Amino acid sequence: MINPDAVNNLKEIVGRNRCFDSPEQLTCYCYDAYFEEAMPDLVLFPCTRDEVSNILKICSAHKIPVTARGAGTSVCGASIPAKGGVVLCFSKMNRILEINTKDRYVIVEPGVVNADLQKALAPFGFFYPPDPGSMAVSTIGGNVAQNAGGPRCLKYGVTVDYILGMEVVLASGKVVRFGSRNVKDVTGYRLSSLFCGSEGTLGMVTSVILKVLPLPESVSTLLVTFDDLDNTANAVADIIGDGILPVALELMDKTTIRTIEEKAHIGLPVDAEGTLLIEVDGVKEACEKEIKKITEKLEANGAVNIEVAKSEAEREKLWQARRSAYGVFAKLSPNLYTEDIVVPAGKIPEMTRMIVDIADKYKLTVGVMAHAGDGNMHPMIPADKADKEAWGRVEKAFDEIMAAAASLNGTLSGEHGIGLAKTEYLPLVMNEDAIEFMGVIKNAVDPDGILNPGKFV
Amino acid sequence: MINPDAVNNLKEIVGRNRCFDSPEQLTCYCYDAYFEEAMPDLVLFPCTRDEVSNILKICSAHKIPVTARGAGTSVCGASIPAKGGVVLCFSKMNRILEINTKDRYVIVEPGVVNADLQKALAPFGFFYPPDPGSMAVSTIGGNVAQNAGGPRCLKYGVTVDYILGMEVVLASGKVVRFGSRNVKDVTGYRLSSLFCGSEGTLGMVTSVILKVLPLPESVSTLLVTFDDLDNTANAVADIIGDGILPVALELMDKTTIRTIEEKAHIGLPVDAEGTLLIEVDGVKEACEKEIKKITEKLEANGAVNIEVAKSEAEREKLWQARRSAYGVFAKLSPNLYTEDIVVPAGKIPEMTRMIVDIADKYKLTVGVMAHAGDGNMHPMIPADKADKEAWGRVEKAFDEIMAAAASLNGTLSGEHGIGLAKTEYLPLVMNEDAIEFMGVIKNAVDPDGILNPGKFV
Repeated sequence: MINPDAVNNLKEIVGRNRCFDSPEQLTCYCYDAYFEEAMPDLVLFPCTRDEVSNILKICSAHKIPVTARGAGTSVCGASIPAKGGVVLCFSKMNRILEINTKDRYVIVEPGVVNADLQKALAPFGFFYPPDPGSMAVSTIGGNVAQNAGGPRCLKYGVTVDYILGMEVVLASGKVVRFGSRNVKDVTGYRLSSLFCGSEGTLGMVTSVILKVLPLPESVSTLLVTFDDLDNTANAVADIIGDGILPVALELMDKTTIRTIEEKAHIGLPVDAEGTLLIEVDGVKEACEKEIKKITEKLEANGAVNIEVAKSEAEREKLWQARRSAYGVFAKLSPNLYTEDIVVPAGKIPEMTRMIVDIADKYKLTVGVMAHAGDGNMHPMIPADKADKEAWGRVEKAFDEIMAAAASLNGTLSGEHGIGLAKTEYLPLVMNEDAIEFMGVIKNAVDPDGILNPGKFV
Repeated sequence: MINPDAVNNLKEIVGRNRCFDSPEQLTCYCYDAYFEEAMPDLVLFPCTRDEVSNILKICSAHKIPVTARGAGTSVCGASIPAKGGVVLCFSKMNRILEINTKDRYVIVEPGVVNADLQKALAPFGFFYPPDPGSMAVSTIGGNVAQNAGGPRCLKYGVTVDYILGMEVVLASGKVVRFGSRNVKDVTGYRLSSLFCGSEGTLGMVTSVILKVLPLPESVSTLLVTFDDLDNTANAVADIIGDGILPVALELMDKTTIRTIEEKAHIGLPVDAEGTLLIEVDGVKEACEKEIKKITEKLEANGAVNIEVAKSEAEREKLWQARRSAYGVFAKLSPNLYTEDIVVPAGKIPEMTRMIVDIADKYKLTVGVMAHAGDGNMHPMIPADKADKEAWGRVEKAFDEIMAAAASLNGTLSGEHGIGLAKTEYLPLVMNEDAIEFMGVIKNAVDPDGILNPGKFV
């Protein structure tokens, strides 16, 4: 329970309309896209940096936990208020403060939805490259907190690569600004990169300066079918190993393809053992040349069919399968366990086989889906958490998948984060002193531990 | 003076041959490419991570300052042992531990010279993009410590964009490892980005995993002459503002051109008011298309002459002028003050005029040179530090240049760092709480302040 005086002070800052405290309201903020739940005591919707600062001053004085939330799409539980307290929901701080395509940056508040930023940039012929699967609803603040990726991050890099500067409110309520509008900036520590990916455990981002890029003049998209999953994975390793860099290189296995087709009826090749969705962009002539090189690699690895999008509508259709995968799988069962391991691209064939073998061992259905070009794999296992026996098998399978990734010089998460989901696995990829070092940073920055407590640090 | 027992223990770790302690030897390590000097008590050349760890344990126990050094090319004084103590020179930890072009990474020790890494990668058809002016001698450890840039970082990004993981020895002697071999990795805090650019104030990097890229199939290089400096700068703003992204876009003004030509006789257009050296790379057809678009912009801005390199030899010749600028200017007078401000690309014309006006005001010769595409400007002022009156004018001019950059939403340093040179200017671009926050991080990580003391934090 929060101190009642503190509650009144907090309510005063945002006013009655931007404060939720009834059980019905609080229930809506006790979960995100992960499996766990924890009730907050209060949900506040700040509109300005000063409100955020004043809220944190009060929470700091009373040692009240504060968990930031954007659209609540975290799949690692990063936005679940594990220790109760205040949920700070940034959905009303959603202004695009500046678009400057001449100098290639935008300044946005954390509640701006990724897709809304894309829409605002398109008329200028620009875009913001990071494209998480949740981009239609997820916010830039959440993207920054999790260092979000997405399919086209293979070519373009992830969120941290686009952060030029930011304004952050610390646990104490102090406001700090790092970086600038400049792509080159070595003035002091690179602190915006520290806050990016810190999952709300170090401070609250209240505005961010992002690099944006001109839209490419041309895009080409292929859907490729294989009758063998090894061949599919080998084609990926071959393309990347040869120095070709597509925008996106997405792999789906037969379980994924068939499940999508059964539910969505979009004309997918249901007899395929594997598919690759490949996209290149840039100058038209360069796209043509790259597609030619890629086609050679695909044929050398036994591709059965290569479908080329001839229009934007056809391109959209090819992407539809990939985009609907998560939604289709999520409907198969009460819960969907989506993994997010990464392995070096050359290990994709080996890791794919290991995932399939582990799922077989535990008698589980697994759909293998991967941003394969950068080795970021999302095996999906539909399951029911209420069925304790089955859930136990799911958890064992994921323990083994994580260990397998680590054994191949891979890592635990490429874009989903650690949150509540993966703290126990950290020792697989970080030495003890490195884990302790994260705690040193956390304790220095948030000495009372009020920011998103109960998570990985 | 260091405790004599500690000195003996330190000497034992590296042995007699890898320890310098005579005045003659120490004098060689009391300076770098900046203007100040400070004598170390001891220079040690570790060969392994364990030696580094043992050295730091002793220094920590006796609170002995430790300053890391690679090739000593820092132009901000980052490698000067401002408070004496131990200089830890990494030149003997210079092994390339792994080259894996299939998975696009290398693992290197900090003493590897940047150019040696390029030479090792070339036979595989790969390269490491960051190319600081000092690359022929500067080490990867120094590049990481300073987050080095270079001409081609316009297109390819700076050092931090290529760090996948690293091993660091902390002040306590503890060894921590962050990141992995994977381009996507959100496992815990992004600590390698915090160490990158921290100028040896947080820990000693003992190995680093770097992303590498395939060499582009084609490169095109232009040298463009203008009879007006405003037009030169406007052409830059126009090219960047139009969404074109060359590899490099280097500007030189008439003072720079004439000075180089007088000394080096390479056939530069001495009647030009400004030149641009422009390079594009990628697929051949894309290069041709980009050169065409760039040429249109150049002509619209009144370019007088456009010279295209027709061979690798001609390309080298065009770069020769740019590469020799620093050396030529350095020979003009006992000291050369090279600035490193950054402004958004659209502000290049305004900033160029401001630099020229400020130099005129203080009756100084200034050569304006810039990685203009990313707004990173290096005005060079030859001067004699022993001439107090003249040096006073130089310092005043730089105060004003720094303030001018800040007034245009620019920043203090794009690639040289803060070191001893720019601490006093930090308040121009960082708020007080942000500067204090750097101290919070520093104190948490290095509580006794033994790592590179006397610098910006």
